[in-house]
Amino acid sequence: MTILGGMELHLWFIEEQAPGMALALKAMGTIHREKTEYQDLAVIETIDAGRALVLDGCIMTSDMDEFIYHEMIVHVPLCVHPSPEKVLVVGGGDGGSIREILKHDSVKQAVLSEIDGKVVEAAKKYLPNTSCRLDDPRCSIMIGDGFRHVNTHPAEYDVILCDSTDPVGPGIVLFSEEFYKGVYSSLKDDGIFVAQTESPFYYRDLLSKVSQTLKGIFPIVKTYVTVMPTYPGALWTFTLASKKYDPVTCVRRVDLKTKYYTTELHKASFALPKMVEDIVGA
Amino acid sequence: MTILGGMELHLWFIEEQAPGMALALKAMGTIHREKTEYQDLAVIETIDAGRALVLDGCIMTSDMDEFIYHEMIVHVPLCVHPSPEKVLVVGGGDGGSIREILKHDSVKQAVLSEIDGKVVEAAKKYLPNTSCRLDDPRCSIMIGDGFRHVNTHPAEYDVILCDSTDPVGPGIVLFSEEFYKGVYSSLKDDGIFVAQTESPFYYRDLLSKVSQTLKGIFPIVKTYVTVMPTYPGALWTFTLASKKYDPVTCVRRVDLKTKYYTTELHKASFALPKMVEDIVGA
Repeated sequence: MTILGGMELHLWFIEEQAPGMALALKAMGTIHREKTEYQDLAVIETIDAGRALVLDGCIMTSDMDEFIYHEMIVHVPLCVHPSPEKVLVVGGGDGGSIREILKHDSVKQAVLSEIDGKVVEAAKKYLPNTSCRLDDPRCSIMIGDGFRHVNTHPAEYDVILCDSTDPVGPGIVLFSEEFYKGVYSSLKDDGIFVAQTESPFYYRDLLSKVSQTLKGIFPIVKTYVTVMPTYPGALWTFTLASKKYDPVTCVRRVDLKTKYYTTELHKASFALPKMVEDIVGA
Repeated sequence: MTILGGMELHLWFIEEQAPGMALALKAMGTIHREKTEYQDLAVIETIDAGRALVLDGCIMTSDMDEFIYHEMIVHVPLCVHPSPEKVLVVGGGDGGSIREILKHDSVKQAVLSEIDGKVVEAAKKYLPNTSCRLDDPRCSIMIGDGFRHVNTHPAEYDVILCDSTDPVGPGIVLFSEEFYKGVYSSLKDDGIFVAQTESPFYYRDLLSKVSQTLKGIFPIVKTYVTVMPTYPGALWTFTLASKKYDPVTCVRRVDLKTKYYTTELHKASFALPKMVEDIVGA
């Protein structure tokens, strides 16, 4: 014991994000931990990335870069639709997407359809920066199955976002053709859908399949990219499917307080790296 | 010993890229290791990222993503200059930048000014995918000080690239005003300079200072971004300084075999995230 005297506790959270590749974050410790009906839920306090929500051992959101993901999944479709009033988020229990959606004055109602109520509870309690707008009167939280929700709310939404976990566990159905057909039916005639579709470094086949499947349902389907330092592969994709508006040519310049998104970056994010073009088509 | 019977050797290379944040790569082992005059040099064979060159404990290049860095540092300036014939790389001993430069038919001579000859030797021997064009007759390798080189070769180059290590150790002088003045003098009247300028997540002040310093020397200075999964922060910047050609409006469409670069991505990479605009100016 003597030789360790005076040293600090070094606790490392290590996520093996791909076979043989891990992100390690030094942590002060666990703020919260529980087994929910659906998953293992933890909130950790890290030195470098701030607070992080960890589901089944995978970082879902951290203070370091959550703004990139949430701004890019939200503002791209909401600045394309001419007047988004009703928006649905499937997943997204941390509240980051809701926070960004409510920056748009046109939005009258933002509905969160999260299957695991414990994620919402933990976010409200332990992730105040991300969940800060979940109690807004324009936000409705529905704890339940997003798949069922889109299939029982026809022609209701201007924009639907799939802010899902990876395609494992409870999130897997949210990458299926059946879900996308439900999304199509739940959107109004000029509606827009965006899904997070993982990194081309590790989910090449998934990205290709989602793109192909959506092209069979929607007239306009385009992939866009961003960078997520805490996610496996860092190069991250979103796939946008639209009934009417082209996401590159129909961009409105909206006055938004952001840390990542700009109108120019919106357009630029549809210019794909060759390796992504090769997966989804140019 | 019995309880470990049958298990494989698990060797993890762990690079603490920022205080409290590390990238970990499972490795088959060390291919090569030496102390050179300038640094600790290692080549490791990883499971997920292929072969990696590690200098002073930091990954410089890996098979996984070296093509992104090298394509983006090279093809942006070489597709802006109307006819780049003579190109200088300061640093870049792994040979990746030379490989990309020699894809341009206009180039008559690519000069590599690398201070550590052992890096070039190790790359030739152990990193064949990256170093494959170092023996090309159009490539001249000068082992020596890049700072001295630019100050003794006036008005000689069409394009100069600073493919340096981080601003520590031997690389620190390559981020100085004196070096940039030497670069300016070593470029022809319509020359272009590009430097790798780290991640805005961890080198905010450096990025700001380099941009400001170059704006005091060159008439046109613009920052562009890419994603480097194995580098700290993943969101990576390059700063381009040009005597005559605007890097966004003067892009030539060159027929290149690439994995990342496209003409559209070239233009898009100058659309900066708000957090980068805030550092370097819009």
